[in-house]
Amino acid sequence: MSAAAANASPIKALVFDVFGTVVDWRSSIIREGKALAKRKGIGHVDWAEFADAWRAGYGPAMNRVRKGELPWMNIDPLHRLILDGLLVRFKIDGLEEADKEHFNRAWHRLDAWPDSARGLTLLRKKFICATLSNGNVSLLVNMAKYAGLQWDTVLSAELMKAYKPDAIVYQRAAEMLGAGPAETLMVAAHKGDLQGARRAGLKAAFVERPLEKGPGGKADTGREDWMDYYARDFVDLAKQLGVRG
Amino acid sequence: MSAAAANASPIKALVFDVFGTVVDWRSSIIREGKALAKRKGIGHVDWAEFADAWRAGYGPAMNRVRKGELPWMNIDPLHRLILDGLLVRFKIDGLEEADKEHFNRAWHRLDAWPDSARGLTLLRKKFICATLSNGNVSLLVNMAKYAGLQWDTVLSAELMKAYKPDAIVYQRAAEMLGAGPAETLMVAAHKGDLQGARRAGLKAAFVERPLEKGPGGKADTGREDWMDYYARDFVDLAKQLGVRG
Repeated sequence: MSAAAANASPIKALVFDVFGTVVDWRSSIIREGKALAKRKGIGHVDWAEFADAWRAGYGPAMNRVRKGELPWMNIDPLHRLILDGLLVRFKIDGLEEADKEHFNRAWHRLDAWPDSARGLTLLRKKFICATLSNGNVSLLVNMAKYAGLQWDTVLSAELMKAYKPDAIVYQRAAEMLGAGPAETLMVAAHKGDLQGARRAGLKAAFVERPLEKGPGGKADTGREDWMDYYARDFVDLAKQLGVRG
Repeated sequence: MSAAAANASPIKALVFDVFGTVVDWRSSIIREGKALAKRKGIGHVDWAEFADAWRAGYGPAMNRVRKGELPWMNIDPLHRLILDGLLVRFKIDGLEEADKEHFNRAWHRLDAWPDSARGLTLLRKKFICATLSNGNVSLLVNMAKYAGLQWDTVLSAELMKAYKPDAIVYQRAAEMLGAGPAETLMVAAHKGDLQGARRAGLKAAFVERPLEKGPGGKADTGREDWMDYYARDFVDLAKQLGVRG
């Protein structure tokens, strides 16, 4: 669809991917790992490697739920399942249950990218702005408070008991916001998520987050024909969507 | 439960009834009725009576869904069902479909009580604050934008496909916010809603809204033993919950 055609149906609501798109999960998990290491005297772990491994476990864990190998569960226990495996793999011993729970909830305490709060404030002047994350509701609510992000509401795949990129997640989100799929713009830094949204009839805005996977991490950026919008950050997206600063 | 016992388990989250508790539905619907009357030249309708009749149809309509006489539907079509009956009863003819839809969505454009926004800002300093209304998500999102209310998230009975005072609505809301039932405080101006919350294990804060049913409307106020908190308004509730202004 050309940008002109995309603009033909007016946008009412924006739904945002969160991990990587709104918040910098990698730096935040590294920070939390280092804090844990300092508190517990753990000297041998590369926390960047640990953060990447934790994140890498996320897709496969959701797939196990999708395939019915695991019963429905939200992201908190899935993160914990991955964490328990990584503690063995990285030879981290001697953590109390409370330490593990606190560390698992590091995903509730992720820092926003520098433009996120400001861009969101701009975008909310003109549009309904909601999360649409595979993260659970309480994770997203706690994160918003922690990171100073203000949403119109928090929507989560938890509400649909399905995970993105399943079409039902995008479609129900639009419906709950009182918007048609074509009136709803999915905002994400990940092409797979945006392609899922497009298959469900939503519009797609790619936002560049070149550092999501770290300085040498090769984030999958680059404009493609099917994208309705392509933005450097949330402030740039607001400008492209006609919001006055 | 005594106030001391109630305070033994710390409160993490507040969930708010909305119609009547946060917003003044009656004055707002009267205002919208008068605007419609002016636009369409309708001279014979008492809009206070109309507003009261619309609201009076709400409980019975939800009961028809609860009993399976109507399929699951959210509040927008239920409001419309009641409206269509009232247009006949009040002999209001000649409205276009677009007029009816706009009037039905008057419930998305309700004014807050004077203390609501300020009280909510105070309460959010210390607690997660979410709606918990039988109103649907988009109604609550639109109303928050219209009335200048800022929630941590919007929770609605729509998410549970059940209506308050069914216990599942309160219990799932607490769970979604990552709080135990006893860590969750239901805030409402209606005793039936609070009793439903108590049956589901939540705590209960009554907030006086003496004008909810109009100047002569006899709102059901008055402290009762089972209430954990009893407040004049949201600012008073914040004070009682130890929030510093």
